[in-house]
Amino acid sequence: MSGLFRPPRIAGSMRLFHDITDILSLREIIGATNLRKRTPEEYRILRDIVTSFERYRGVGNDIQLTLQERAANEVIMCEKKREYQKGILDPSKFAPGRHIFQVLHKIRRSPLFNILTKMPKGGALKVHDTSLCSTDYLIQLMYKEHLWVCTIDEGCCVVEFRFAEQKPTKGLHPEGQWEPIEQLRERRGEENLNNYLRRRFSMYQKESFENNAEAWRHMMGIFDLLDGLIQYAPVWAEYYYQALKEFHADGVQYMEVRTTMPQLYCLDGQKLPVRETVQIYQDVMKLFRKDYPDFIGAKLIYAPLRHVQPEVVGQYVKQCTELNKEFPGFVIGFDLVGQEDVGHPLSQFVEELIKLPDNINFYFHAGQTNWYGSHVDENLIDAIMLGTKRIGHGYTITKHPLLMQLAKYMNIALEVCPVSNQVLQLGSDYRNHPAATLIAENVPLVICSGSPALWCASPLSHDFYMAFLGIAPMNADLKFLKRIAKNSIRYSALKDEAKAKAMEKWKKNWEAWIDDVVKNKDKTLQQTPAK
Amino acid sequence: MSGLFRPPRIAGSMRLFHDITDILSLREIIGATNLRKRTPEEYRILRDIVTSFERYRGVGNDIQLTLQERAANEVIMCEKKREYQKGILDPSKFAPGRHIFQVLHKIRRSPLFNILTKMPKGGALKVHDTSLCSTDYLIQLMYKEHLWVCTIDEGCCVVEFRFAEQKPTKGLHPEGQWEPIEQLRERRGEENLNNYLRRRFSMYQKESFENNAEAWRHMMGIFDLLDGLIQYAPVWAEYYYQALKEFHADGVQYMEVRTTMPQLYCLDGQKLPVRETVQIYQDVMKLFRKDYPDFIGAKLIYAPLRHVQPEVVGQYVKQCTELNKEFPGFVIGFDLVGQEDVGHPLSQFVEELIKLPDNINFYFHAGQTNWYGSHVDENLIDAIMLGTKRIGHGYTITKHPLLMQLAKYMNIALEVCPVSNQVLQLGSDYRNHPAATLIAENVPLVICSGSPALWCASPLSHDFYMAFLGIAPMNADLKFLKRIAKNSIRYSALKDEAKAKAMEKWKKNWEAWIDDVVKNKDKTLQQTPAK
Repeated sequence: MSGLFRPPRIAGSMRLFHDITDILSLREIIGATNLRKRTPEEYRILRDIVTSFERYRGVGNDIQLTLQERAANEVIMCEKKREYQKGILDPSKFAPGRHIFQVLHKIRRSPLFNILTKMPKGGALKVHDTSLCSTDYLIQLMYKEHLWVCTIDEGCCVVEFRFAEQKPTKGLHPEGQWEPIEQLRERRGEENLNNYLRRRFSMYQKESFENNAEAWRHMMGIFDLLDGLIQYAPVWAEYYYQALKEFHADGVQYMEVRTTMPQLYCLDGQKLPVRETVQIYQDVMKLFRKDYPDFIGAKLIYAPLRHVQPEVVGQYVKQCTELNKEFPGFVIGFDLVGQEDVGHPLSQFVEELIKLPDNINFYFHAGQTNWYGSHVDENLIDAIMLGTKRIGHGYTITKHPLLMQLAKYMNIALEVCPVSNQVLQLGSDYRNHPAATLIAENVPLVICSGSPALWCASPLSHDFYMAFLGIAPMNADLKFLKRIAKNSIRYSALKDEAKAKAMEKWKKNWEAWIDDVVKNKDKTLQQTPAK
Repeated sequence: MSGLFRPPRIAGSMRLFHDITDILSLREIIGATNLRKRTPEEYRILRDIVTSFERYRGVGNDIQLTLQERAANEVIMCEKKREYQKGILDPSKFAPGRHIFQVLHKIRRSPLFNILTKMPKGGALKVHDTSLCSTDYLIQLMYKEHLWVCTIDEGCCVVEFRFAEQKPTKGLHPEGQWEPIEQLRERRGEENLNNYLRRRFSMYQKESFENNAEAWRHMMGIFDLLDGLIQYAPVWAEYYYQALKEFHADGVQYMEVRTTMPQLYCLDGQKLPVRETVQIYQDVMKLFRKDYPDFIGAKLIYAPLRHVQPEVVGQYVKQCTELNKEFPGFVIGFDLVGQEDVGHPLSQFVEELIKLPDNINFYFHAGQTNWYGSHVDENLIDAIMLGTKRIGHGYTITKHPLLMQLAKYMNIALEVCPVSNQVLQLGSDYRNHPAATLIAENVPLVICSGSPALWCASPLSHDFYMAFLGIAPMNADLKFLKRIAKNSIRYSALKDEAKAKAMEKWKKNWEAWIDDVVKNKDKTLQQTPAK
């Protein structure tokens, strides 16, 4: 032991630290010493080595901050510490220890959250196409012409919407009563109806769910309710433009949208071919990019429901191949969605899935469960073995050290969705989110939101806030945020040249934001934090 | 890729698997292949390699079961699967997904739990000495002679107990009123008072706590209430005998008890020197071993409170050194206890701690928090750097891959206390307990309970049940249980020869239990599981 400290090359702990970059050497040096026989000075040196090593490994520690970024970092860390101090004093005041339903509005008053809202976050790589726009916007749609509403329970429960010239005759509920929305509004009162619908469009309808299966059923019910409203072709276009607008306002410059690729309908009830759905997406994206030149673009991942037989997956694969041929560089990926726990595992579909041409990437949802060792958990194995480029959620991956190592080695990014995981009852306290281990182990990851509108959260900022304050270590700072933002471009489906251009666009906004944080330093620090 | 499957040595996946025993080689083989270009057959082989590799790494997979053990394993796994099936159908029916307060009694009706109750678990390595005995036993103590009770709020709130000839004059509460317990019983009614005290002696008094700080305050309050009752010298001896009896009945054959080493008092109020406390412990243990020859023994870990100045820790170290000299082989370890979040970090005490002679082991509590990157979290670093032999809780260690590797490499066992972590609000759903990662990574671990009496749990069986059903992977079986039981002897403070003898005693009970499980197979499987 004492010999370890004698040679001049290890006189300073930092010297030694830089010589040891892998965990194996370090554990051998420490493991080989008798830890009970040393001086306080030796102790401090060895301890410094370990803490430096840990700091060096975590996400973001490859980033070097500029002078201006350091100034911004001071502001950010000051606000972050303020929230910790409050939380340590009274843990019930620490937002990431609470359920989002209880703290959503409180978070909006947090100076740290407000800084994060303006932060250029790069891309939103995991979002589902019919849960993008705010409830406020959905309520606006209620005033569109030709909107019919179907109710059950003597008009008390809205179950479906439809745009049509004539009263619809068929619907999801045979016993439902169709009427023009104006009539229902008249009867129930405008404010009443809107408040009711606000609740119906979100997961807030219930304070808490008995279990994740119930939360899922509730969420799928919202999707069903939204379908008739959003899948009307003109609304579809408008909805998507609005989504891009809301995400862009939240610091998002690029999107990869998972879509079940529904057939849209017209006022006369006619259904359009699926290619029209894609065409609208592409037209709207181009229009938006014209209106907002700093926007990088958006792409689609075809992500139909997983609760089907292998033959159907075969048809999905064909459909995706065709759409990719018609929209190359736009329909770029494939996934399967819906509650994994009750769906079929990927392993059942392998023979069909490997037929997908390899210019189309897999971006599989996997391991969105807490049943360790179940076939759902094993989807992680199949996702990786099938060559997935990213993993949606991968909540259980920390229970699979080998898979975590493979993800790191093969550059597969985990799409971490903190708020979604809480609302769908995988976890409760953000401080226990498994992504902390991914951060420590420097496994590639991006922060995503999934279906933010369903929990009335910002497109991406609440997830960033929870990840930064609740999941990452206390000393995670601007380097962490910058790495996460850059990851969202690095692990996107953009090709090399486009990726470089995207990074340029992001960098421009990033620098402006940094200047803004520094400029508003005094204003920020003077704010009284939310109680 | 195709080359990979050509050479005869890797024709069968198992062959290849046995050649690759480390994660680095495996990730290189898989990482080097183009996963998008292979046949379904190649896919299956590679997938088998990965799943075998995972299975091979987990806790317990070094165990080979005998034929009789395999027969017992079938019964156990049948019951385990029955609980999973029910849980997957309706997750709210899955006990490890719920709070122990809600399912304590339901678990007692589970056939799986009943098998685990009888399982010889080896040693209980982490228990606190004043929270060992059941509430039923504490209520019995209420009928002892000379017991006085102190109440506040006009007799409504019991705050202290004391054995004395005369009415006590001083107490923790200056405003408190002392009276003989008989008088209070008379006034409030026997059943009422006992029911009230049952609640006061447990954490059940409140359905849930706002946060972990509140839960801790509540728990410390119970310890305060118990002190006057238990620290009466004659009761102390009786309490400890009863504790050994209850633990033994729960399948425990060995104990390492953490004690704050209180000075006991006599009927005249006189305080005994601390060595008397140890003497009583030793005498009782010897007596118990005589009465129950299959009992291996018990040892003490001196574990005073951590909320003190460094000088006081210096005194602790001296005290421990002296007691160890007087009771060698009985007072064998040192620790600091109390809520880590509000106590001082180990790093503040290093200079004092390294003075402890190295024949006394450290068994530090560390990382019993969810504040990642806090100084409490960093206690893990200091515990390991100080040469700790085991870590109490180590709840945050999975956020420190380096420390996890060090623990594995240096054979430091984690004392995992599932139920305690839930009650003290570190986690809610057992399926998210970080020990799952330790199990997957095969980090040394033992299952412990801490203060089971405070949550009315069995001495160790509820923790085993939660770990086996809720934390370990679905396919964890008797091999897992056997490894955990053996670990409790392997990572004990027993010396080599004593350890071998202990293992023999345990093995005898283990084999009898296995026979019993097999013999009762039909009876077990016919039971209707709890709804």
